[in-house]
Amino acid sequence: MNEIKIFSPATVANISCGFDVLGLCLDTVGDEMVVRKTNEKKVTITKITGYDLPFETRNNVAGVAALSLVEHLKPNCGFEIEIHKKIKPGSGIGSSAASASGTVFAINELLGKPLSLKELIPFAMKGEELASKALHADNVAPVLLGNFTLIRSYNPLDVIGISAPEELYVTVIHPQVEVKTSEARKVLPKAIDLKKAIAQTGNMGGLISGLFTSNYDLIGRSLHDEFAEPYRASLIPNFNKVKEACLNAGALGSGISGSGPSIFALSKGKDVAKKIGKVMSECFNNTAIDYDIHISKINTNGIKILETN
Amino acid sequence: MNEIKIFSPATVANISCGFDVLGLCLDTVGDEMVVRKTNEKKVTITKITGYDLPFETRNNVAGVAALSLVEHLKPNCGFEIEIHKKIKPGSGIGSSAASASGTVFAINELLGKPLSLKELIPFAMKGEELASKALHADNVAPVLLGNFTLIRSYNPLDVIGISAPEELYVTVIHPQVEVKTSEARKVLPKAIDLKKAIAQTGNMGGLISGLFTSNYDLIGRSLHDEFAEPYRASLIPNFNKVKEACLNAGALGSGISGSGPSIFALSKGKDVAKKIGKVMSECFNNTAIDYDIHISKINTNGIKILETN
Repeated sequence: MNEIKIFSPATVANISCGFDVLGLCLDTVGDEMVVRKTNEKKVTITKITGYDLPFETRNNVAGVAALSLVEHLKPNCGFEIEIHKKIKPGSGIGSSAASASGTVFAINELLGKPLSLKELIPFAMKGEELASKALHADNVAPVLLGNFTLIRSYNPLDVIGISAPEELYVTVIHPQVEVKTSEARKVLPKAIDLKKAIAQTGNMGGLISGLFTSNYDLIGRSLHDEFAEPYRASLIPNFNKVKEACLNAGALGSGISGSGPSIFALSKGKDVAKKIGKVMSECFNNTAIDYDIHISKINTNGIKILETN
Repeated sequence: MNEIKIFSPATVANISCGFDVLGLCLDTVGDEMVVRKTNEKKVTITKITGYDLPFETRNNVAGVAALSLVEHLKPNCGFEIEIHKKIKPGSGIGSSAASASGTVFAINELLGKPLSLKELIPFAMKGEELASKALHADNVAPVLLGNFTLIRSYNPLDVIGISAPEELYVTVIHPQVEVKTSEARKVLPKAIDLKKAIAQTGNMGGLISGLFTSNYDLIGRSLHDEFAEPYRASLIPNFNKVKEACLNAGALGSGISGSGPSIFALSKGKDVAKKIGKVMSECFNNTAIDYDIHISKINTNGIKILETN
């Protein structure tokens, strides 16, 4: 195999009570990437469509992730990367994670899969580090593994895959305003009231139990966030209005996707997910803010191979 | 049915990362109780063996729990309660919870089960309130439901039963020193570093995932407590020594049972559980402190009916 074309999906990180430890994989929105082997032992980015991103390998999340993997595997070739960006950078649905994970996945395939998908995570995280100055895994893990992923621990890195109930859907609205990750980090408190921290662990236990037993009501009852949402909600226009509209339309729960500005809602079944998309959009119809809506089942596979040559 | 004799088991609450939200049910240690219907519409405690506890109904955890249930159900009879106490009060393995839960279970049986086991929890909690001035459910829930129980939320009360992997064993040492629950509460911090709170939710997700998938290693990797153990460890003689000995002997994890002084360890299989009991006891062999050791599978049923008449 000399060339591979892949679909590298968007992801929702944090997921209310899963702040900083949970992520899930979307199915209907993602980047397309083409990676091909070259004789020259170099990593170059040859094409970027969709959005304006740096071509210089060391300044591009896909490039940085590729370099870290190449440095580790020391293959007898180089790589050319084409990035066809469909996920808007800064949307809060894992745009950088898709590029970084997609690249390491593609290179690993081209080299005959020397590493497992889990083993690729630390290399994809190098791209995240460039994008957000933090080595976080809650977007790259669900891109690579699909489904829900839990980062139990960073030191050592311990990622647990969790299957999603069959009828679980995600609706995401991306209101096109800028929420800087650095700003979203700055508003977080350094310490949390012990009672709230206990409530969060209770809800986390409930959410994981609900996922394992396909108990949609329990999933819904558990979707609360004491750590970030109370502090970040005000950074996102209409957040409370959108969340309330989602819950009224039958969402199991709703919260901030990543560090925003996207807002997600989980629901049982496609019809409810679509209805939620409608009420989400209505919240922005009489504003000057543009938005995208994504409606998706949980992607159980992660990255998909579209073509190989 | 006019009379029922039951075995009401001891429990381990908190379970490291499950501080204040998780509990599990033991199988080899518990109180025996006899409850019988009387014509006179009164609740009386007629016999207490094992330990010296108050006979006055309103001063006894079993009495108080019984009264709250009777007030709710308004049966056309009264009840006599015999308590054959085997769980030492103040041991940290749910002595008061066994008495309170056992009584409401027995009365419910005698009345033809008007309430479900989950519905009995709030009445048993009334006994806990008398014992510790707090309406907590993390011991009474596993007594009534067996297995592991998660208190997802107190307001509203939302208790989730979680089955245990088949080979999971618990070893408990009860060093006979007094740790007052009020003292153990006092040393807890009011607020927790956000990073530690996130680590706790990650471990909670890991523990619940491990229980659902019978992944013993993951259960072990998740058994850390950032909320209480760092503050309470010094209240329990030899805690760190015992914990280290347990881990060296092959325990999946170890921590404080309830608010102490008992220390628990989880393990895979009976042989390791027994070995842990041995190394636990060795930690106290050259001290003036007496101790009890309990080795038990997870009790999947909770309270057991021994006899009915």
